[in-house]
Amino acid sequence: MRDEFRADLQIVSQLLVDMAEGVRAAMGHATRALLTADRQAAETVIAQDAEIDGLYRHVEERVCDLLARQAPVASDLRAMITALHVAADIERMGDLAEHVAKTALRRHPSPAVPAELRGVFTDMAGIADRMAEKIGRVLAKPDADLAAELDRDDDAMDDLHKSLFGVLLSDDWPYGVETAIDATLLGRFYERFADHAVNAGEHVVYLITGETA
Amino acid sequence: MRDEFRADLQIVSQLLVDMAEGVRAAMGHATRALLTADRQAAETVIAQDAEIDGLYRHVEERVCDLLARQAPVASDLRAMITALHVAADIERMGDLAEHVAKTALRRHPSPAVPAELRGVFTDMAGIADRMAEKIGRVLAKPDADLAAELDRDDDAMDDLHKSLFGVLLSDDWPYGVETAIDATLLGRFYERFADHAVNAGEHVVYLITGETA
Repeated sequence: MRDEFRADLQIVSQLLVDMAEGVRAAMGHATRALLTADRQAAETVIAQDAEIDGLYRHVEERVCDLLARQAPVASDLRAMITALHVAADIERMGDLAEHVAKTALRRHPSPAVPAELRGVFTDMAGIADRMAEKIGRVLAKPDADLAAELDRDDDAMDDLHKSLFGVLLSDDWPYGVETAIDATLLGRFYERFADHAVNAGEHVVYLITGETA
Repeated sequence: MRDEFRADLQIVSQLLVDMAEGVRAAMGHATRALLTADRQAAETVIAQDAEIDGLYRHVEERVCDLLARQAPVASDLRAMITALHVAADIERMGDLAEHVAKTALRRHPSPAVPAELRGVFTDMAGIADRMAEKIGRVLAKPDADLAAELDRDDDAMDDLHKSLFGVLLSDDWPYGVETAIDATLLGRFYERFADHAVNAGEHVVYLITGETA
C-alpha cells in the first residue's frame, strides 16, 4: 500500500511538472506574441491552454482516486491537498499567459506594447520564465531553498511592476489612455503569474518543512 | 459514521456561508470607501480580510480532518473537494474587495473614481453584492437554478466592464492616464470578483447535479 501510494504520488508530481513546463512555454509564446506581434505564437498559447486545463483535471481525478482508494492520513494526506493547491495555481498561470496572448492578438498587427515599454516587459517576462522554471524543478525534486528564491524573484517582479507605472505616469507618456490601459492589464497579468508561482512554491515548502512560509 | 459525516459537512457548509457573508460585507464596505472616500470603511475591509483568511484555513483544516477520520468516497469525497474549491474562490473574492479598499485608500481624501464613472462602479458593485448574496444562499441550501443565475449576473458584469472601457476611451475623457489606470484595475477587481462567484456557483452545481456547467 505504501509503495502503491508512492507510485501514485510520483504520477501526480509528474503531472504537476508537466503543467509547470506547459505554462512556462505558454508564457514564453505569449511574450513573443506581445513583443513581436507574432500572431501564430498567440494562437498557439490559446489553443494549448486546453491541454493545461486537461492536465489540471487529470491531477484532480488522480488525487480523488487516490484519496478514495488509499485513504491517506497525516503527511500523505497533506501531500494530496498540496497537489490540488499547486495544480490550481499553475492552471491559473496558464490563464494569465492566455490573457497576454489575447491582448497581443487584439492589437495585431500593431504591437500592443510601445517601444518605451519593451524593456520592462522583456524583464518581467524573463522573471516569469525563471519562476515557472523553478516551480518545475521544485516539483521534480523538492528543495526548500530553491522554493524560497521565488520570493526574491517576486520582489524583482514587483519592482518592475512599479517602474512600469513610473513610465505610464511620466509627463511625457505619448501614447494616450488606450495603450496605458493595455499596459496596466499586461503588467497585472505578469505580476499575478509571479504571485501564483510564489503560492505554488509556498505550498511545496509547507509540504517539505511542515511550516508555512 | 454517516450521521457524523453529515454533521461535519454541515459545519463546513456553515463556514462557507460565513465566508460568503464576509466577502459580501467586505465588497460593500470597499465600494463605500471607493465612492464616498470613506477611510474607515476601507480600513475595516483591510482589517477584516484576516478573518476571511482565518475561515478559509478553518475550512481546510475541517476538510483534512474529515478526510483523515472518515475517509469518505464517491459523492461524499466529491463534496469535500468541492468545499476546498469554493473556499478558495471565496477567499480570493475577499482579496479583491481588499484591493478595491486599498485603491480607495491610496487616493484618499480624493475620490479614486471621478463623477463620470460613479454610475458604472455603482452598478458593478450592485451586481457583485447580488452575486455574493446568491453564493451564500446556494451554499446554505443547494439550488442549481439559483447557481445558474450567477452566469447571467456575470454577463451583466461583463457588459458593465465593457462600458467602463467605453468611457475611458471616449475622446472627451478628461482625467488623464492615472485615473484611467485606477479605473482599469478597479474594473478588473469587480469583474474577477464576479468570475470567482461564478466558479464557486459552478462547483456547487457540480455537487448537486454531478455535471459541470
